[in-house]
Amino acid sequence: MEASSLNRLIEELKRLPGIGTKTAQRLAFFLMKVPKERALGLARAIEEVKEKVRFCRRCGNLSENDLCGICSDSRRDAALICVVQEAMDVLAIDRMGEYRGVFHVLHGALSPIDNIGPDELNLRPLMERLEETEVREVILATNPTIEGEATAMYLARLIHAKRGIKVSRIAHGIPMGGHLEYADEVTLSKALEGRREIQ
Amino acid sequence: MEASSLNRLIEELKRLPGIGTKTAQRLAFFLMKVPKERALGLARAIEEVKEKVRFCRRCGNLSENDLCGICSDSRRDAALICVVQEAMDVLAIDRMGEYRGVFHVLHGALSPIDNIGPDELNLRPLMERLEETEVREVILATNPTIEGEATAMYLARLIHAKRGIKVSRIAHGIPMGGHLEYADEVTLSKALEGRREIQ
Repeated sequence: MEASSLNRLIEELKRLPGIGTKTAQRLAFFLMKVPKERALGLARAIEEVKEKVRFCRRCGNLSENDLCGICSDSRRDAALICVVQEAMDVLAIDRMGEYRGVFHVLHGALSPIDNIGPDELNLRPLMERLEETEVREVILATNPTIEGEATAMYLARLIHAKRGIKVSRIAHGIPMGGHLEYADEVTLSKALEGRREIQ
Repeated sequence: MEASSLNRLIEELKRLPGIGTKTAQRLAFFLMKVPKERALGLARAIEEVKEKVRFCRRCGNLSENDLCGICSDSRRDAALICVVQEAMDVLAIDRMGEYRGVFHVLHGALSPIDNIGPDELNLRPLMERLEETEVREVILATNPTIEGEATAMYLARLIHAKRGIKVSRIAHGIPMGGHLEYADEVTLSKALEGRREIQ
C-alpha cells in the first residue's frame, strides 16, 4: 500500500489489545472515510485522557482530581473498602448502583512468574488507610484466578493481623443465567461449598 | 464514573464500527495504562491520516499524492482495470501479488433504498478513463451481494456499449478450504454454474 500514514495508523491500531490486522484495517479505513472532525474527536479524546486522568491519591482509582469522585463523596461509607485489581473493576461494581462503600485499586495481582510481588502492587497505601481511618470491613474482590486468589489470601492474612477489621471474599459460584452442565468443576465445587440455607 | 475525559474517550471509541461498550472501556483503560508516548502515537496517526491521505485523482484509491502508487507505477498494465467498491478491496486484491493491472474504486455500490444511484458513485471518471486510455479488459470485482451484483450488471451494460472492451466478473463459488455442506444454496448454484472443464 502506498499511503504510508494510513499504514502507520493501521500499525498503531494493531497495538491495541484484541485488535488484529483485519480489524485495524477496517478501523483505519473507517477513520479515513468519516468527516475530519469526527476522526479528530477520537484523537483529541486520547490526548485529553493522557493529559488529565491520573490516579486517586487515596484509592488508586482513575481520577481527574487529587481524590476520585468516590473517595470525595461524603455519602459513601468510608468504613467499607472493596479491594479490586483494576480501575475497570471499580466501574463494573459501581455500575450496579448497590455498593455504597469505597474502593482500593491494587493495579494488579501477585504473580511470582511475572515478578509481581507485594511491592509492585498499590498495597502499602491500603495498609496505611487501615491504620489511619476507621475501617469496619474489607471486601476482597480480586478475580477468582490463581493470582487473584493468592492476592486475596495474602491480603486476608495481612489484614487479620489488625484486630477488629472483618475481611470478606466475594462469592464464587454459578453465574446468574448460567447452566450447571456447562460449569467447570472448580466453579461447581465453589458453588456447593458456598451454599446458603434458605429460610 | 468520575473521570469525564475517560468517559469521552469511551464514547469516541464506541463510535467505531464493531466496537461496543465493553470493548471501548477495555481499549480506553488500555490507553490509560500505556506510556503516554504510545497512546499519543495513535492520536497522531489519526491526525496525520486525516491531514495527508486523499483520493487518487485517476482511480479513487487512497493516496498521499495526486496519483496513487498503483496508478503512477509504470510497470503495471494500465489496459486492465479492476473495478472495486472500496479502497480496502484494492488492498485485499493487491496483497495477493498476482494482479498486475490497475484499479478503479467506486466508493460504494448502487442501492436505490439508500438513495445511491450512478451519480453517487465514482463512475463518471471510470467512463472517462475508458474513453481516454486504451483499455483491454474491465474486471468487475464488486461484492457478490445484491447491490454489488446490480452494480456489476449496470456497469457491464454501460461498458459493453463501447466496443472492443472485454468485461469480466470475478468468479463466485465455494471458498478455498470451505466445505460443500456448509455452503448456502446460491453459492453452490454459482459454483456449479461456473464449473470449468479439467483438461
